Amino acid sequence: MPDAWELADYIVIKALENGVTIMGLTRGKDTKFHHTEKLDRGEVMVAQFTEHTSAIKVRGRAEVYTKHGMILTEPEK
Amino acid sequence: MPDAWELADYIVIKALENGVTIMGLTRGKDTKFHHTEKLDRGEVMVAQFTEHTSAIKVRGRAEVYTKHGMILTEPEK
Amino acid sequence: MPDAWELADYIVIKALENGVTIMGLTRGKDTKFHHTEKLDRGEVMVAQFTEHTSAIKVRGRAEVYTKHGMILTEPEK
Amino acid sequence: MPDAWELADYIVIKALENGVTIMGLTRGKDTKFHHTEKLDRGEVMVAQFTEHTSAIKVRGRAEVYTKHGMILTEPEK
Amino acid sequence: MPDAWELADYIVIKALENGVTIMGLTRGKDTKFHHTEKLDRGEVMVAQFTEHTSAIKVRGRAEVYTKHGMILTEPEK
Amino acid sequence: MPDAWELADYIVIKALENGVTIMGLTRGKDTKFHHTEKLDRGEVMVAQFTEHTSAIKVRGRAEVYTKHGMILTEPEK
Amino acid sequence: MPDAWELADYIVIKALENGVTIMGLTRGKDTKFHHTEKLDRGEVMVAQFTEHTSAIKVRGRAEVYTKHGMILTEPEK
Amino acid sequence: MPDAWELADYIVIKALENGVTIMGLTRGKDTKFHHTEKLDRGEVMVAQFTEHTSAIKVRGRAEVYTKHGMILTEPEK
Amino acid sequence: MPDAWELADYIVIKALENGVTIMGLTRGKDTKFHHTEKLDRGEVMVAQFTEHTSAIKVRGRAEVYTKHGMILTEPEK
Amino acid sequence: MPDAWELADYIVIKALENGVTIMGLTRGKDTKFHHTEKLDRGEVMVAQFTEHTSAIKVRGRAEVYTKHGMILTEPEK
Amino acid sequence: MPDAWELADYIVIKALENGVTIMGLTRGKDTKFHHTEKLDRGEVMVAQFTEHTSAIKVRGRAEVYTKHGMILTEPEK
Amino acid sequence: MPDAWELADYIVIKALENGVTIMGLTRGKDTKFHHTEKLDRGEVMVAQFTEHTSAIKVRGRAEVYTKHGMILTEPEK
Repeated sequence: MPDAWELADYIVIKALENGVTIMGLTRGKDTKFHHTEKLDRGEVMVAQFTEHTSAIKVRGRAEVYTKHGMILTEPEK
Repeated sequence: MPDAWELADYIVIKALENGVTIMGLTRGKDTKFHHTEKLDRGEVMVAQFTEHTSAIKVRGRAEVYTKHGMILTEPEK
Repeated sequence: MPDAWELADYIVIKALENGVTIMGLTRGKDTKFHHTEKLDRGEVMVAQFTEHTSAIKVRGRAEVYTKHGMILTEPEK
Repeated sequence: MPDAWELADYIVIKALENGVTIMGLTRGKDTKFHHTEKLDRGEVMVAQFTEHTSAIKVRGRAEVYTKHGMILTEPEK
Repeated sequence: MPDAWELADYIVIKALENGVTIMGLTRGKDTKFHHTEKLDRGEVMVAQFTEHTSAIKVRGRAEVYTKHGMILTEPEK
Repeated sequence: MPDAWELADYIVIKALENGVTIMGLTRGKDTKFHHTEKLDRGEVMVAQFTEHTSAIKVRGRAEVYTKHGMILTEPEK
Repeated sequence: MPDAWELADYIVIKALENGVTIMGLTRGKDTKFHHTEKLDRGEVMVAQFTEHTSAIKVRGRAEVYTKHGMILTEPEK
Repeated sequence: MPDAWELADYIVIKALENGVTIMGLTRGKDTKFHHTEKLDRGEVMVAQFTEHTSAIKVRGRAEVYTKHGMILTEPEK
Repeated sequence: MPDAWELADYIVIKALENGVTIMGLTRGKDTKFHHTEKLDRGEVMVAQFTEHTSAIKVRGRAEVYTKHGMILTEPEK
Repeated sequence: MPDAWELADYIVIKALENGVTIMGLTRGKDTKFHHTEKLDRGEVMVAQFTEHTSAIKVRGRAEVYTKHGMILTEPEK
Repeated sequence: MPDAWELADYIVIKALENGVTIMGLTRGKDTKFHHTEKLDRGEVMVAQFTEHTSAIKVRGRAEVYTKHGMILTEPEK
Repeated sequence: MPDAWELADYIVIKALENGVTIMGLTRGKDTKFHHTEKLDRGEVMVAQFTEHTSAIKVRGRAEVYTKHGMILTEPEK
């Protein structure tokens, strides 16, 4: 049932500055970055967990909307 | 059960200016843009995650309706 | 189980002016318009996602009823 | 499991004038009208999505009861 | 699993005058009347969608109880 | 899974006068009366939809308890 | 899965006088009485729908507890 | 799946006097008593419907806890 | 699926005096005691229905926690 | 599906004195103690029902957290 | 379906002092410690039940978050 | 159904200082660290349980969002 993918949960990320980085980490024995997406200020990305992504790391000032609420990243100054 | 597609979640995007861009990113090992849709001011798009789309990026002033609430993109000025 | 189609979610569109356009975008690798429906002022359309439609675009003044609430398109003047 | 049909969602339409038209649009690659039903003033129709119908269009003054609430068509005068 | 029939949703119709007509429309490619039931004033009918019925039309003064609430038909005078 | 029958929904009918008639209509292509049950004043009947019954008609003064609430038949005088 | 029987719904009957009669009607093409149970005043019976019983008739003064609430039979005097 | 038994619903009976009788009636074509259990004052019994029991009759002063609430038997005096 | 056992419902018994007896009655055609457990004052037992136990009888002063609430046994004095 | 084990319900026990005993009773025809665990004051144990354990007995002063609430054992003094 | 593992419930443990010990007990006929994890003050561990772990014991001052609430261990002084 | 992975629960970790360490512990007979991820101050990581990870340990000052609420790690000073 490969199509259960579409039913996977999703998070939403809104960039609050230019150059916010969204990194997808690989599922499986080795946990590596397999994709990096850059968002500019005000852009919004809606992203699912997938067959290949089991963790998502956000760097840069952004709002991260999850089922645990909205979490504000606070990058170092 | 290929038809589980129709049960997939959907988001709604309402453009608040001309030229709002909705980019679909491919599911799978490589994460690439596979489709770009342009919306003019006031147009509404209802979009599902699909077998081919696991992330959606919105650029330009728009309202993005998701299960985490309505998120306003705030494009750079 | 081809009949799971009937269980798919549906949205409702009510045209507030003549010539509201409802465009169905194809599911699958290529995302193209496969159907366009015109509504006149006051007409109502109830539409499901299908095996062939994974996105719906609405152009012209209309009320779009979805699980995220009612969203009013605001066409350019 | 052809019988899942009976579990499909249904809408209710109440005609507020004679000659209200309920059009069923075909599911599948081609989206065409496959059935048209006329209601006279005060008549009520309860209709399911089916294997053959994925969209329903209502023309003429009517109340359309859906899971998104009751939507009043407002035909042009 | 032919027995899923019994789990189908049902509506209730109460006739408010003699000669209320309940028409069952066939499921399938052709949408035709396959059964007509007459109710006299005060009679109540509880009816399911079935393998053969995907739409029900009510003519004459009646209360139609559905999951969208009670809808009163208002026949022409 | 013939035993899903037992999980079917049920309604309750309470006769308010002698000779209340409960008619079971057959499921299937032909919709005919296949059973008639008489209740005397004060008697209560609890009845399921079955493999053979897809509609139930009540004639005579009675309370009909359904998932849409209690509906009082009002026989002609 | 014959054991789904145990998951079937149940009703409760409390006799308010001697000689309350609980009649089980057969499921299937023929609807006949297949069992009659007598309750004396104050006795309580908890009864499921079964493979063989699709309707239950109660005669005599009793409280009938169902998912539609408690319904008091009111036998003729 | 014989083990679905354990998931069956249960009722609780508390005897308010000595000699409360709990009778299990057989499931199946013939409805007979297949087990009788005696409770003394203050004893509590927790009992499931089973493959063999589809009805339970309680005689003697007792509290019967069911999903329809607590029902007090009131034995004749 | 023998492991559905673990998902079965459970009750909790707290002894309020020494020598509280918890008796498990066998599931199946014959309903016999297959296990007796003694609890001393203040001891707590958490017990599931099992493949072998379909009824539990409690004798002696105890609190019996079930989905119908807490029921206090009241042993004869 | 041996892995349904992990989905089984769990209880939590907190010892309020040294030497609290948690006894697991075997599932199956014979109900015997198959494991005994000792907790010292303040220790917490989280325990599931398993393929081998269908009852858990707690002796000694402890808090037992279950779906029926927290139950305090009260060991004899 | 080995992957149901990921759906298993999880608890969270926060150490309030150095050297908090989290012990995993084996599922199966023999209940033995199969893993011991040490947490230092302020560290947090999120742990699932697994194919190999059916009980978790916590020793040392810690907060244990479960579906029954937060339970504070209170180690002996 | 390897894709049930995507449906697995997820936690969110927000680093409150540089060098927060997120350690994934292996599922299976041996419980070992199989991956370590470092977060800098303000970075957010969204992580699922996977086929390979059944426990997650967090070291360093961070907010850990779980279904049991937000838990603040409090590293030693």
